[in-house]
Amino acid sequence: MTRPNVINASVSPKGSLETLSQREVQQLGKVGSGGLHQLFRQCALAILNTGARVDNAKTILEAYADFEVQIHQQDRGVRLELINAPADAFVDGEMIASTREMLFSALRDIVYTESELGGQRVDLDSSAGITDYVFHLLRNARTLRPGLEPKMVVCWGGHSISIEEYKYTKKVGHELGLRNLDICTGCGPGVMKGPMKGATIAHAKQRVLEGRYLGITEPGIIAAEAPNPIVNELVIMPDIEKRLEAFVRVGHGIIIFPGGAGTAEEFLYLLGILMHPDNRDLPFPVILTGPRSAEAYLQQLHAFVGETLGAQAQQHYRIIIDDPTEVARCMAAGLKEVERFRRERNDAFHFNWLLHIEESFQRPFDPTHANMEALQLTLDVPPHELAANLRRAFSGIVAGNVKDKGIRLIEEHGPYRIHGDPRIMQPLDALLQAFVDQHRMKLPGGADYEPCYRVVS
Amino acid sequence: MTRPNVINASVSPKGSLETLSQREVQQLGKVGSGGLHQLFRQCALAILNTGARVDNAKTILEAYADFEVQIHQQDRGVRLELINAPADAFVDGEMIASTREMLFSALRDIVYTESELGGQRVDLDSSAGITDYVFHLLRNARTLRPGLEPKMVVCWGGHSISIEEYKYTKKVGHELGLRNLDICTGCGPGVMKGPMKGATIAHAKQRVLEGRYLGITEPGIIAAEAPNPIVNELVIMPDIEKRLEAFVRVGHGIIIFPGGAGTAEEFLYLLGILMHPDNRDLPFPVILTGPRSAEAYLQQLHAFVGETLGAQAQQHYRIIIDDPTEVARCMAAGLKEVERFRRERNDAFHFNWLLHIEESFQRPFDPTHANMEALQLTLDVPPHELAANLRRAFSGIVAGNVKDKGIRLIEEHGPYRIHGDPRIMQPLDALLQAFVDQHRMKLPGGADYEPCYRVVS
Amino acid sequence: MTRPNVINASVSPKGSLETLSQREVQQLGKVGSGGLHQLFRQCALAILNTGARVDNAKTILEAYADFEVQIHQQDRGVRLELINAPADAFVDGEMIASTREMLFSALRDIVYTESELGGQRVDLDSSAGITDYVFHLLRNARTLRPGLEPKMVVCWGGHSISIEEYKYTKKVGHELGLRNLDICTGCGPGVMKGPMKGATIAHAKQRVLEGRYLGITEPGIIAAEAPNPIVNELVIMPDIEKRLEAFVRVGHGIIIFPGGAGTAEEFLYLLGILMHPDNRDLPFPVILTGPRSAEAYLQQLHAFVGETLGAQAQQHYRIIIDDPTEVARCMAAGLKEVERFRRERNDAFHFNWLLHIEESFQRPFDPTHANMEALQLTLDVPPHELAANLRRAFSGIVAGNVKDKGIRLIEEHGPYRIHGDPRIMQPLDALLQAFVDQHRMKLPGGADYEPCYRVVS
Amino acid sequence: MTRPNVINASVSPKGSLETLSQREVQQLGKVGSGGLHQLFRQCALAILNTGARVDNAKTILEAYADFEVQIHQQDRGVRLELINAPADAFVDGEMIASTREMLFSALRDIVYTESELGGQRVDLDSSAGITDYVFHLLRNARTLRPGLEPKMVVCWGGHSISIEEYKYTKKVGHELGLRNLDICTGCGPGVMKGPMKGATIAHAKQRVLEGRYLGITEPGIIAAEAPNPIVNELVIMPDIEKRLEAFVRVGHGIIIFPGGAGTAEEFLYLLGILMHPDNRDLPFPVILTGPRSAEAYLQQLHAFVGETLGAQAQQHYRIIIDDPTEVARCMAAGLKEVERFRRERNDAFHFNWLLHIEESFQRPFDPTHANMEALQLTLDVPPHELAANLRRAFSGIVAGNVKDKGIRLIEEHGPYRIHGDPRIMQPLDALLQAFVDQHRMKLPGGADYEPCYRVVS
Repeated sequence: MTRPNVINASVSPKGSLETLSQREVQQLGKVGSGGLHQLFRQCALAILNTGARVDNAKTILEAYADFEVQIHQQDRGVRLELINAPADAFVDGEMIASTREMLFSALRDIVYTESELGGQRVDLDSSAGITDYVFHLLRNARTLRPGLEPKMVVCWGGHSISIEEYKYTKKVGHELGLRNLDICTGCGPGVMKGPMKGATIAHAKQRVLEGRYLGITEPGIIAAEAPNPIVNELVIMPDIEKRLEAFVRVGHGIIIFPGGAGTAEEFLYLLGILMHPDNRDLPFPVILTGPRSAEAYLQQLHAFVGETLGAQAQQHYRIIIDDPTEVARCMAAGLKEVERFRRERNDAFHFNWLLHIEESFQRPFDPTHANMEALQLTLDVPPHELAANLRRAFSGIVAGNVKDKGIRLIEEHGPYRIHGDPRIMQPLDALLQAFVDQHRMKLPGGADYEPCYRVVS
Repeated sequence: MTRPNVINASVSPKGSLETLSQREVQQLGKVGSGGLHQLFRQCALAILNTGARVDNAKTILEAYADFEVQIHQQDRGVRLELINAPADAFVDGEMIASTREMLFSALRDIVYTESELGGQRVDLDSSAGITDYVFHLLRNARTLRPGLEPKMVVCWGGHSISIEEYKYTKKVGHELGLRNLDICTGCGPGVMKGPMKGATIAHAKQRVLEGRYLGITEPGIIAAEAPNPIVNELVIMPDIEKRLEAFVRVGHGIIIFPGGAGTAEEFLYLLGILMHPDNRDLPFPVILTGPRSAEAYLQQLHAFVGETLGAQAQQHYRIIIDDPTEVARCMAAGLKEVERFRRERNDAFHFNWLLHIEESFQRPFDPTHANMEALQLTLDVPPHELAANLRRAFSGIVAGNVKDKGIRLIEEHGPYRIHGDPRIMQPLDALLQAFVDQHRMKLPGGADYEPCYRVVS
Repeated sequence: MTRPNVINASVSPKGSLETLSQREVQQLGKVGSGGLHQLFRQCALAILNTGARVDNAKTILEAYADFEVQIHQQDRGVRLELINAPADAFVDGEMIASTREMLFSALRDIVYTESELGGQRVDLDSSAGITDYVFHLLRNARTLRPGLEPKMVVCWGGHSISIEEYKYTKKVGHELGLRNLDICTGCGPGVMKGPMKGATIAHAKQRVLEGRYLGITEPGIIAAEAPNPIVNELVIMPDIEKRLEAFVRVGHGIIIFPGGAGTAEEFLYLLGILMHPDNRDLPFPVILTGPRSAEAYLQQLHAFVGETLGAQAQQHYRIIIDDPTEVARCMAAGLKEVERFRRERNDAFHFNWLLHIEESFQRPFDPTHANMEALQLTLDVPPHELAANLRRAFSGIVAGNVKDKGIRLIEEHGPYRIHGDPRIMQPLDALLQAFVDQHRMKLPGGADYEPCYRVVS
Repeated sequence: MTRPNVINASVSPKGSLETLSQREVQQLGKVGSGGLHQLFRQCALAILNTGARVDNAKTILEAYADFEVQIHQQDRGVRLELINAPADAFVDGEMIASTREMLFSALRDIVYTESELGGQRVDLDSSAGITDYVFHLLRNARTLRPGLEPKMVVCWGGHSISIEEYKYTKKVGHELGLRNLDICTGCGPGVMKGPMKGATIAHAKQRVLEGRYLGITEPGIIAAEAPNPIVNELVIMPDIEKRLEAFVRVGHGIIIFPGGAGTAEEFLYLLGILMHPDNRDLPFPVILTGPRSAEAYLQQLHAFVGETLGAQAQQHYRIIIDDPTEVARCMAAGLKEVERFRRERNDAFHFNWLLHIEESFQRPFDPTHANMEALQLTLDVPPHELAANLRRAFSGIVAGNVKDKGIRLIEEHGPYRIHGDPRIMQPLDALLQAFVDQHRMKLPGGADYEPCYRVVS
């Protein structure tokens, strides 16, 4: 990679960081030098790189090795000094508005996460405490807006998909946007971008000015999946479990497009929650969809669910092949049901308080080799717990594929060993193999996929 | 073509037609039955067909032969009854907001045009009177907005261009949008759509909510160039001359992309005006641009200008090859100059009153065989008059290619005969031949191009 | 009166006059020199004097004898040059925003009235044509706003009332404002100001930001009743008949407070219309109200209606004594009825098209001695026509009291002679005498009242 | 007092309390039953009584002895159940919007104050910690708005003043409003209402829609000085010292109208701060003003400052007699200076961080007899400390006059004894005597004033 164009600039915040106390400014100052600095620098670089083609974190970090960001205090507030920043983030020397917004969103979330954790209010030892923490992070990011009917549609799926699948996600987003629905994704490329792009055009056609394109990410993933520039609300949750909880509590319905192990992880997380007896009566529209070419993939996923979690689990979603209009109609109908239900129960629209999430889903899963090997994948555990364990298995595989720590562990100790009941392990192995065959496990820009796990029946 | 999906619906206006007097409602009612009805039905069909692929008027008219639109009066105002309307204009039975807006814009403009002409105020016998008429049509369409700095960029070019050229217009639109500039086009596909689409995404990135995508069209052309759905302001001017005057008085700068005879007509119209001695000191940024593949085309156009109108004419524009950023920067700088000039002169930003337009440019040119043959294309007429005459030649060719009346004339009397000084006729013939060779004269969806003219030296 | 403080200033328009054609600017220029100039100068002076105590036109005109207003044309629009303008209209050299708005409203209406009259569209020979003219003047003034439910309450009554009555009007306005209702008056002092002031405070309490305080006046009266500064929409109708028609077509209900001959004129005009058989089923809430001290006055007016127009006429209004809350509640209930009715009939909310107004009410009444003497005030004419004639009688008396032409006629020929059936003349005389006794006929700031009429049985 | 009209109602919040976590809803629930309940009930009653004439806390509490307010939790948020609430707070069964806002502002502030104090973030042991606490309370109340230039004018003065003085405050408020300035007061009647009322009318004239009428009060005082209904932002600070700090940090300039001991306390507090050497160069416009009739009072206050704190102290304010326009002009000029200064220093506009406030001014003063007697009122202490001590003396007198605890102490132990240097005590006694003579120490609605202090030279 040739030396990229860089620029030095000084930017002041707009929005949430405009009214700070002197104590808060000092706290932000610590980010400029202390332990959080490396994290913020990395997020900042990813955001400044928004819109660029390259979405490999390592490549970006190397390309802009001399990039630096400093936080300056002044009586009036805070100001960022950027040195050797990617020139693409600027137009004629002025930072693009959305980039500037996202930069300060990242600063806000990183500092608030830390600051709240330090406070005595946060109680991460209880399930209710974790949910409360998620709520506060989202509210602080101004994501929770009273007065809006349920219309936030979460779109999950791969960040590295085929052109055909990408175009399909745009079409679905377009149909959703035509029905005045908003989009929430993990905020990177691929499925995380397509629906937002389609909805942007559709919102323009419907003269919807206040369309929301909400991106929920996490520090460890943001660099690998730099937020796409359509995102007009960015929230950085501290880890994958809180990010997933944010998705299911803020979203009113979920569409799952083709993807790899990460998508399977999300799908199993969702099924595990929806299958819990306490959530039996809770309306929550879920749709699996893709173009005709993805039909085999979707059917295999569907079969996997049937074989491992049972026919009951298959009741929680619909599969729609190659029909964006039907997807949007079906979702719109499901959201009406959600609205009716919440009105009846006097529940808030902006946060799904009633959804019960078992603590086991909220606890971070540390993908050590021991933990992976210890996963109980047998048919005698209740289905929603089995879903939780399968979710962890996929989580470990994602870590082994793309996350720093996981990659190092694999390099050190070899592939994870996953074992359990053959009636589970066999379909699991087949599914994972299919992901590999369909190039859904390939690292972006990387070489051939070298599996980071071994299924042991 | 298979029988398309149709829908019956009843829609009431939003915006300019909400407050009507009973007399005005009656006047609109006449459109439902009288002489204007056919015109309105045709425009309505084109608008309802927005976004569809087919942009051939005749094909559309045939496909929806049983489409009907009726205007119903009620005390409260007006209401349109649509029968067998294209289903694509609706989402779950509800008309798309932008389509509804455009439908009533068309009704508004057709009625107002007629109504004003009937009034004693309009004086189409004088140049000032024509300009005044153009002003009133635009103001009635709420196009003239005080308080906005000069930032309306007109984009001209072909409606049927190559994919590569189309992508290039999107990129230029994106760069213009990043600089908070608005887009005005003839509101059809191709060059009329690309820059708007690019600017929409860029405006989203810059958090510009009030971006303007102004489409200026005419009844005779709207069906052949159905407005693209990005257009958020639609104006229908009564004929090509008033449409061209609207472009140059409302736009603050003009970008010319590759196109065919129509684009050449527009370019010559513009040059003819800017070359007039009265406009000598008036800043008016004009840029010719295209991707690398269009370089030869642009250079040939440039050469044609030099050979026929002289080097002086070439001073009025810049050529930029394959550099969207440079195009946008150069335009932004030119607009600053326009703003400075108008402030100094206390001139309005929303309408270029100071631009002198010779009456010969304002008068409709009737492309009969006699008129075409009589065009004085010799080097002894002043350059800006020669430009006017060349403009008329191209206008006739466009009519012979795509307009009803022109096509009928050609069918009846054979190709037009154009003649003049060989030093003009030779480059003209070469240019037209190049258009043919590059498939720039091909009718959309049509067969091989059969020239509607013959150059006679 | 000592020489008042004056100021020279140059102001440019905001709002309706920002987008003018060169022809319109020229037309406005004529106001600066031609026949309309005197009229505009007088209105401008009254508006600049807004808020000052003195509301006697003659006194104001004399105090500012060297005031001058010039209209300057420039390419960009129009600009007013004020010489020796009342300093109270300015704060630290800058004109108060509402004054500036009203100044350009006056210019707009005076020019538009004239310009429309010149056009062939206006047909003042038919009842429908007059209504259409009224509609266009109001629409041009942006008074007709679609999308608002019926909530415009017209308040009629004297401009010179007792402190107690004035405070009562404020309380009624306050209660109306608490119910989110808007106020429309003749826009001068007294009853024309009190309800607006009360509603302003109530709207602030209810956080209503878009409260409307609509003043409808006429050129001949504006100087005598300078618009109060609360007015945020000012319309100048060409004469009293069109002003009255504007009131009853734009207002959704009417409250009548104590007043003199002018108020009686308005009341009779209203009764005459509501009694017309065509308007039988049209809901139109009318309330007569005042403080306890005004009870005798209201009862006398009520009795006068009963004796001359009959018990049927008394069904068209309610009398409420000393109970502002009940007035507002009753009006709010009546407006709900109006809304229901118009929704059923699909009638517009912003203009009462269905209200039938006889041409005799629309024609200006010229209060010559001959016309006054010829009024048919007998019991054999249908009640709604008798109401029309009584209205004219009061109109003549108002002219003889306060209008230039009327005063001159009286000075020349002595008091008007009014005669008719004693059963009408006797109560009429008693009512007028009561007005005199209660000082309701006194000219503002003037001496004892010298009757301008003589009742001849 | 006859049994007043009451109403039962259920209201849900608008604004800051719309997005609550379940934990927060539970916390609010505690207010419904626990220790804060009595405080909230009292504030709620005062707010519901807004606009009523009676402003004596005790009288109100007795009149509505059976008033009750309950806080109901629901998934969606919080809801207040009101029983036997004053009917004046409702219009046709619906609570007035401003009352509803203020009710939830009170709930918000009472809960937040308590909740923050419980948190580990608040450090009331240091001066910086107290300022930080004040900042957070204000920010949580959404009082700190970035992007507004300095234009918040604090008006101090008596809540029980003469009609003439009240009218004067309205005129000053009107002149301030004409210059687009905002008003901040203690939010009760008298001086706390007049300027807001005047500014409301002036803002309407200047078409200023976003005028701010900020009321800063404290729980112990709100019942005695029920917020006037013009207030559109209400903040309840926990005690008088934090309230005073809020005034001087949020306000950009201060106008002092005639008042009693409370006003004197505020004036001395301000002088003590401005006289501190660290604040020497800080621009802070202060104006003493009143009508002609208040001239003697103002001059006596001025003389008192000169005799006790010296001529230097007199440099910090201007005295303007009977000239509202001059007051507003002078304040506007002072604010320009504040703006210039803060821009130069990059200081925030919304919070005066640079103003140094000695800890002694921030610490609550407990007006026990011992503390009052111990006050060091001698000429050997530095002037700004003497000002602080004099401030405390007046604070005690206010407590003895109107605050529950103070009144009980006086009843128990007799009048406070204040002593010090005769050169201070003599003018102090004279000033207090003048307050008594001018009925400025009279309790609202109460009997003759019985002094709660004795000056002992």
